[in-house]
Amino acid sequence: MKTVPPKTVGRLTLYWRTLRDIPADQTHVYSHVLAAKSRLTPAQVRRDLMVLGYAGTPAHGYNVQLLRKHIEAFLFPASEQRVAIAGVGNIGRALLKFFSGRRPTLRIVASFEANPEKYDRLIQGCQCYSIEKAETVIREMDISVGIIAVPDKEAQFVADVFVGAGIRGILNFARAPLHVPPDVYVEDIDLAMAMDKVAYFARRQQAGSSAVG
Amino acid sequence: MKTVPPKTVGRLTLYWRTLRDIPADQTHVYSHVLAAKSRLTPAQVRRDLMVLGYAGTPAHGYNVQLLRKHIEAFLFPASEQRVAIAGVGNIGRALLKFFSGRRPTLRIVASFEANPEKYDRLIQGCQCYSIEKAETVIREMDISVGIIAVPDKEAQFVADVFVGAGIRGILNFARAPLHVPPDVYVEDIDLAMAMDKVAYFARRQQAGSSAVG
Repeated sequence: MKTVPPKTVGRLTLYWRTLRDIPADQTHVYSHVLAAKSRLTPAQVRRDLMVLGYAGTPAHGYNVQLLRKHIEAFLFPASEQRVAIAGVGNIGRALLKFFSGRRPTLRIVASFEANPEKYDRLIQGCQCYSIEKAETVIREMDISVGIIAVPDKEAQFVADVFVGAGIRGILNFARAPLHVPPDVYVEDIDLAMAMDKVAYFARRQQAGSSAVG
Repeated sequence: MKTVPPKTVGRLTLYWRTLRDIPADQTHVYSHVLAAKSRLTPAQVRRDLMVLGYAGTPAHGYNVQLLRKHIEAFLFPASEQRVAIAGVGNIGRALLKFFSGRRPTLRIVASFEANPEKYDRLIQGCQCYSIEKAETVIREMDISVGIIAVPDKEAQFVADVFVGAGIRGILNFARAPLHVPPDVYVEDIDLAMAMDKVAYFARRQQAGSSAVG
């Protein structure tokens, strides 16, 4: 299977959103319009869309509905793909709500917790199990995607459980670099780092403008 | 003022975490140890740390406490830096809890909402105001950082309000590319895109392994 870089996959989601928001009476769209909406170059857009095997025409550009269908076939699961989340603290619970019903074929079907006060009940409409049962539940429910929203020090343990149970894609909210085999894809979302960066550049700009003023 | 790239600032937060977790009886650390913990090269670590003006010595490496203090002086605000968040839905509320007390000098002091059922009261211990009062509140409270956690279609409006009120750093959770002046730093966190990427690569690995087996 041909390898598509993660950044290309990410940009395809941006094009899909743009296509979704195009009014129904507009049948075609040019690469430069898709590029402007995503703040990219038209050449980048055309290169990315080549992975779909649908090229459009120079005269009319891309057919909006066809391009959208091509991206959906590439990006979204055709049949149900199941997701589990470890950790149902503030972030975990917010993610359960956020992802609920967002994609018809991508569904969070289980959550895991080390805290006995939280497991063995429904949380945000989703059954919460003891983390000790994770490997069994993941295999029995055919879960292929894992979200890690546990405290940093527990993240590697959870990643090992996920990988051992056959999960090959992990969305990691813990601030810990995970060690996983090369065939496992990890996407890190580091909220604290993002906040520290924004705060740093905000201070720097303010200091810059006071120095001028 | 010398420009430090955002990625360097991000990596400094990784080194800081590693230093924070080093046992108190270990006085020095080599760049290759910091590199291994963050999964980077020693040369990258040494280059990044040069922005601090503290070089360590080839024989002993870096003094753990001194390096930590240097990074803190660079990365964290010396006096209180104030943050506002627009949107107190699931994600907004989770962020209010997550960032509460995380850095002593970086504090969310106000939230904004368009929904009258939500504003004019405390949410997660933080006063929630009507978005119409945002410009006044931001200026009066000297807020320099903004978090956007509103629905996608309202994100640009909120960004304009933030920028108009003097905010120069934005953490954006909306799935919309924001148009801001060049002196405003925006860090996008796109949860839906991250999830779609992870799901795509998880499917691809499973399809790959079934093809082989």
